[in-house]
Amino acid sequence: MAVLLRAAGRGLFPWRGFCSRGSQGEFTPGFVEALKAVVGSSHVSTAPAVREHHGHDESMHRCQPPDAVVWPQNVDQVSRLAALCYSQGVPIIPFGTGTGIEGGVCAVQGGVCVNLTHMDRITELNSEDFSVVVEPGVTRKALNSHLRDTGLWFPVDPGADASLCGMAATGASGTNAVRYGTMRDNVLNLEVVLPDGRLLHTAGRGRHFRKSAAGYNLTGLFVGSEGTLGLITSATLRLHPAPEATVAATCAFPSVQAAVHSTVQILQAAVPIARIEFLDDFTMDACNRHSNLNCPVAPTLFLEFHGSQEALAEQLRRAEEITQHNGASHFSWAKEAEERSQLWAARHNAWYALMALSPGCKGYSTDVCVPISRLPEILVQAKEQLKASGLTGGIVGHVGDGNFHCILMLNPDDAEELHRVKVFAEELGRQALALRGTCTGEHGIGLGKRQLLQEEVGAVGMETMRQLKVTLDPRGLMNPGKVL
Amino acid sequence: MAVLLRAAGRGLFPWRGFCSRGSQGEFTPGFVEALKAVVGSSHVSTAPAVREHHGHDESMHRCQPPDAVVWPQNVDQVSRLAALCYSQGVPIIPFGTGTGIEGGVCAVQGGVCVNLTHMDRITELNSEDFSVVVEPGVTRKALNSHLRDTGLWFPVDPGADASLCGMAATGASGTNAVRYGTMRDNVLNLEVVLPDGRLLHTAGRGRHFRKSAAGYNLTGLFVGSEGTLGLITSATLRLHPAPEATVAATCAFPSVQAAVHSTVQILQAAVPIARIEFLDDFTMDACNRHSNLNCPVAPTLFLEFHGSQEALAEQLRRAEEITQHNGASHFSWAKEAEERSQLWAARHNAWYALMALSPGCKGYSTDVCVPISRLPEILVQAKEQLKASGLTGGIVGHVGDGNFHCILMLNPDDAEELHRVKVFAEELGRQALALRGTCTGEHGIGLGKRQLLQEEVGAVGMETMRQLKVTLDPRGLMNPGKVL
Repeated sequence: MAVLLRAAGRGLFPWRGFCSRGSQGEFTPGFVEALKAVVGSSHVSTAPAVREHHGHDESMHRCQPPDAVVWPQNVDQVSRLAALCYSQGVPIIPFGTGTGIEGGVCAVQGGVCVNLTHMDRITELNSEDFSVVVEPGVTRKALNSHLRDTGLWFPVDPGADASLCGMAATGASGTNAVRYGTMRDNVLNLEVVLPDGRLLHTAGRGRHFRKSAAGYNLTGLFVGSEGTLGLITSATLRLHPAPEATVAATCAFPSVQAAVHSTVQILQAAVPIARIEFLDDFTMDACNRHSNLNCPVAPTLFLEFHGSQEALAEQLRRAEEITQHNGASHFSWAKEAEERSQLWAARHNAWYALMALSPGCKGYSTDVCVPISRLPEILVQAKEQLKASGLTGGIVGHVGDGNFHCILMLNPDDAEELHRVKVFAEELGRQALALRGTCTGEHGIGLGKRQLLQEEVGAVGMETMRQLKVTLDPRGLMNPGKVL
Repeated sequence: MAVLLRAAGRGLFPWRGFCSRGSQGEFTPGFVEALKAVVGSSHVSTAPAVREHHGHDESMHRCQPPDAVVWPQNVDQVSRLAALCYSQGVPIIPFGTGTGIEGGVCAVQGGVCVNLTHMDRITELNSEDFSVVVEPGVTRKALNSHLRDTGLWFPVDPGADASLCGMAATGASGTNAVRYGTMRDNVLNLEVVLPDGRLLHTAGRGRHFRKSAAGYNLTGLFVGSEGTLGLITSATLRLHPAPEATVAATCAFPSVQAAVHSTVQILQAAVPIARIEFLDDFTMDACNRHSNLNCPVAPTLFLEFHGSQEALAEQLRRAEEITQHNGASHFSWAKEAEERSQLWAARHNAWYALMALSPGCKGYSTDVCVPISRLPEILVQAKEQLKASGLTGGIVGHVGDGNFHCILMLNPDDAEELHRVKVFAEELGRQALALRGTCTGEHGIGLGKRQLLQEEVGAVGMETMRQLKVTLDPRGLMNPGKVL
């Protein structure tokens, strides 16, 4: 079994060809009772439907259910659960909203899935210090609703209404990262239950300073560790002043290059652009149909500007000059909140717009990130290879960061098509690596990109990461089979 | 000896009362010859004057010379030096410009000091990608001179013309961090020689993407590790567009509180201020004398704004409104480059201005950082305690980050005064910890703050850091006695 499970992790698509482990029968007698003793019997389930629900995320990765699901109500229970599993050698898989897309929650070795959504309090808001403390059940949208009247907001926006601790675990980012950074830049402190149940505060208990040079950066180590080093039970996040005014815009370009050159020039001109998103012609067409837009079917930028009215006027003028100089046309401005949300809803629904083109198909999204100067060549290559592979898909990208996604539509029961998708995605990953980029800008390694990670960081990098894993999780129980 | 050396590390002031280890006599026969075989005999020195020079930084920490100093010319030599020291169990201390102030280069166990300043090439500039690659001998000013005509700059500015890799090792920041972040935010990749000589590229060899979610954040782990995990032989840094226009200003406040409230309100108003520095009345007086300024002797803010002419006008108007609302007076604007550099030279020379007040004295700088809402109370307390302790000193602070320094003047031969400084600094550190802050915003732990680090991160935090150290430096040879 161990051999099979390891094999299952190789390559991008481990979701087919292996049967899942199955039932809680492998727990030692009394183990489920011990779980119930920690969290209460109504907060433990071994029901097949519940386990199935927790065995997959939103991706194509094959469902691999845990043997039990538990819902702790507080950090003390999480700590006791970890200690219990540690003493019994049972794997633990942390679970937030299940909105990941690299199979991060698949229970490849079974074990206990710890669903953290019942811990959903915003335990502290320090407005003057621009910081907030959230439990793992608090989602991005819930936090921003809570902040509505404070003049503050949390900008990291991966699209899905993910839990903020889950976003910290994944190292998520999204459309606002070009201005506000990723989770790496916006997590100030983490409370982590270590595999043996001990409680770690990565920047010291209760601390929420803006900067520090005190010892090793443990916060940075846990952000992006994908649940493989411990369970995040609380996150202290950096907040930002809510923008005084916001304007969104779209414009069409004669070529992919023209769109990317505009992006580079906007950044060089120090225009503090809040979002700058690329959609290829295929995706734009899908969005027009799905969201009743009327944009030209062409390489397109979706832009957003944040600032005072006065600052906005200047930002808009500069961006318009630069984009027009690169041949942009069909400018469309959205200044009112409703128009703006319609526009961004269209962008965020790009995935569903593409899926709607091929009913019955499922989606797979690549996630490479390259130095921005190399974007035009890899985008053009990707489009050519999509065509050559006979695959259907569109491209969307956070081009200000050099990060883009090919969203591919596929019939998961068509093994041959699946194979072509796999080959395409791996080739694209290798092209990004050849252009000095990364195989994942924001989705994480999860199950599918472990081979590419090795190629990306090299033998010494992998060895170092493995040493860190063994040090912090010596029994290999935290979300096993992921990342490494 | 080991006992003495360990004791020497306790508390804030390990620079007195223990004799240094001394000579290269403890090397095994032939070891110096082996060093020469790696780097050439002209690049190895065991001369007492050279060793003395490399046994201290700019702080009061007692000189503790290494047994030999070597100047490698390239990364391959660094790697061979590390392997050689590893095989012989000889400590290694990386050395850049020696401008640290927490004793980070003191050779508390002797060993080989690796002076990296001969490796001083800027090996790559990627203007479109806003990134640059520097060897460890390249200083902050040398890089910015090199960038002068590119429209780009590297903003992190700790005052001293430190080496950029040294700044990465320390997790440095300084006056621009409020807008551009610290080294943690501006290092994209590091080349590190591990203790046994292996070469690690923390984000993969040659890569320079803006963001990634690929595996554990090794870059973040090495930034701020103070030479205790490996030797940084190259850093890939994030560059920023050079500001189109810059305006500096000073204004005086009726109280410390009024200055800090202005700072919070400027940040809340999302004014993208580039620098916002606090000087107390005592420091302002010293700067007036030392730099021929004519500012009121009062709590003062030094401000700097970056942007287009149009954006600047608005930033200035808002900042002026806010500061005036808090009772500020005596605005002085510096729009021309010469006036601005004069103003900032005065700020950066605050240390020397204070030292000039007490000829023959030496300086010690505290470095706490607290949530900004707690700044007024700790600043007021610090001033009262300075007075109550009978100590002389001024306060300067990067108040936008909650980080400030008490610069104390002391006679290093006066044991009683030294004791009072020690008590004051430790108490201030503990007050910062009680206010949920950190004992070091940017200077690092080095030798003097190891006890405070324990109090800051707690038992599990320390245990985790120690585990990481043992994992990456199993023989404890990298800059021993520092941080942990």
